[in-house]
Amino acid sequence: MSKRRTMAILADGMLDFHHGKTATSILRYRPSDVVAIVDSHHAGAVSQDVLGIGGQVPIVGDMSDALKYRPDELLIGIATRGGFLPPEWRRQIALALQSGVDVVNGLHYMMAEDTEFKALARRHGAQIVDVRRVPENLSTSEMLQHRAGSHVITFVGSDCAVGKMTAALEMRQAADARGLSTAFVATGQTGIMLEGSGIAIDRAIGDFMAGAVENLVVEACELADWVFVEGQGSLLHPAYSGVTLALMHGSLPDAMVLVHPPGHRQIDDYPVTIPSLPRVIQIYEEAAGWIKPARVVAIALNTRGLSNQEAARAVRQTEAETDLPAADPVKGGADKLVDAVLAALTPAESSVSGA
Amino acid sequence: MSKRRTMAILADGMLDFHHGKTATSILRYRPSDVVAIVDSHHAGAVSQDVLGIGGQVPIVGDMSDALKYRPDELLIGIATRGGFLPPEWRRQIALALQSGVDVVNGLHYMMAEDTEFKALARRHGAQIVDVRRVPENLSTSEMLQHRAGSHVITFVGSDCAVGKMTAALEMRQAADARGLSTAFVATGQTGIMLEGSGIAIDRAIGDFMAGAVENLVVEACELADWVFVEGQGSLLHPAYSGVTLALMHGSLPDAMVLVHPPGHRQIDDYPVTIPSLPRVIQIYEEAAGWIKPARVVAIALNTRGLSNQEAARAVRQTEAETDLPAADPVKGGADKLVDAVLAALTPAESSVSGA
Repeated sequence: MSKRRTMAILADGMLDFHHGKTATSILRYRPSDVVAIVDSHHAGAVSQDVLGIGGQVPIVGDMSDALKYRPDELLIGIATRGGFLPPEWRRQIALALQSGVDVVNGLHYMMAEDTEFKALARRHGAQIVDVRRVPENLSTSEMLQHRAGSHVITFVGSDCAVGKMTAALEMRQAADARGLSTAFVATGQTGIMLEGSGIAIDRAIGDFMAGAVENLVVEACELADWVFVEGQGSLLHPAYSGVTLALMHGSLPDAMVLVHPPGHRQIDDYPVTIPSLPRVIQIYEEAAGWIKPARVVAIALNTRGLSNQEAARAVRQTEAETDLPAADPVKGGADKLVDAVLAALTPAESSVSGA
Repeated sequence: MSKRRTMAILADGMLDFHHGKTATSILRYRPSDVVAIVDSHHAGAVSQDVLGIGGQVPIVGDMSDALKYRPDELLIGIATRGGFLPPEWRRQIALALQSGVDVVNGLHYMMAEDTEFKALARRHGAQIVDVRRVPENLSTSEMLQHRAGSHVITFVGSDCAVGKMTAALEMRQAADARGLSTAFVATGQTGIMLEGSGIAIDRAIGDFMAGAVENLVVEACELADWVFVEGQGSLLHPAYSGVTLALMHGSLPDAMVLVHPPGHRQIDDYPVTIPSLPRVIQIYEEAAGWIKPARVVAIALNTRGLSNQEAARAVRQTEAETDLPAADPVKGGADKLVDAVLAALTPAESSVSGA
């Protein structure tokens, strides 16, 4: 096995949990691989100070400063609206390529096709990896059966960037720890960077989105009994609702987990009010049910920014309001949510027959 | 203005209303431009015999036979599952290009990128037009306001290929005939071929589908008061529901028209049951309402294959079942449906203040 690669993360001016969700997820799940963060707004600080995660990873003001930490690759750690490349980042990316540092990019903007970047990469022996590039041979979904004995849990959210991937990873980890056979299906750029496989389904052609998810899920069901499918977007999001529905109907979940930050009342950047949680649950169950019934069986709360006391209150209120188990899997562990999924999807008879 | 171009239509082995919906729509709306149909299964017959439309257009067994009718272009008249090119059609297409006949293609398969076709086109001075190719500069939707005074009517269906485009074109024509200011927004390959503009949104990248529709609709609302938006897919379709939802949320309709073939009880090729019409209406109103409320205000029935008596009975039954005006716009005219839209979207005061 080759040695682990070290990375610098470009997050200039956007090192926060919303726009910088790729950066923060890498810092959460692969902290030891990160040698530097490029963000002129917080240069001189360390990751832990700014984000509360990632430990002593230094934040530097420019890619030229990051080079002395000898990264193997520069990871573009930010999701811009529409996935476009802000022009002010070009210099940083060029600097990396000129130094032979590979660039790993999750934007819609395909850097490997950029004339300048392509030439620099060739000249200096660097690779450009566009994580969102989808395979050429996608096709429409066929409603293939999942392997008997496998269970698909799809993550849905009240909005984009609320922690659907994180909840799925935490629950998968907790299920793993119990010795269950698990898989994580990555459907977005960050999930793919972490898992090393998957398809960015928001980049797939409309007609092939559901088919792309179906293939990933059917394959995962062959390998594992408990398949956790990273969600995308939200049915309540004017721009991305179609991606969300394709993901739901392509994955044909047996159960859903709803991810929500308590108090989040409006879709970010859009004049759309998020209804009450029971109504959000109803919306997801309604939409799943057009093709195949599936229940929301647990609520993963994202209580970032709340005190422990406030978070505990949010959990109690959510459980009272929805009559479902709720927990923040990052703060409180994911066991309670895994219990809820097992209770919902494991028939009572099977535990009897197995006894 | 240049002279109208004549076309041959390739529909080999699939000259029916379902797979051949492009062919049949061109024959319905531009019959005088079609000089021949290539279909070995019906060679020797004329269009009217096989399809009941298109008059005396000859059906020939091979592109070499079509050449004597001197077409300017060969139009690929068939929608294959997934939009792939059946290998047995390559010879016909190559024959056209070798004779300097342009090829107009609505499949997902991009013929202009096909090495063989590209070389033939260059050598023989023929053009290849891939109608489904989407613009490079698409972006996410922003929930832009439509011009005050404009009305958006989006067409939705119980399944794919049930006549959503036809209903929209017929209603637009009937509204035109009343002197109303109208526009038709083409969102699929056939609509684009007929209208000469539009975007094949099922070909757009997932994240940009709603934005692509939004742009088309906002532009149309600047030009016309009554904007009829061609629908795609169905919320009940496992493979295409995401495209449909993106189209609904991107177009932000003021009203919807539901298109349905009476008696159609299951999604074609998929084990999904189509529920009762009141439930289908509820599903569409539910999904629209997540972002902006909109009612289904009329039912366009597609009674192809029914006798006039059966069709009249289906209209009566549908109206009793749904409490909405219903009509087959192809057989019975679209005036009743246009009346329903006007009644739903024209405030009573405006007719008073205009008196």
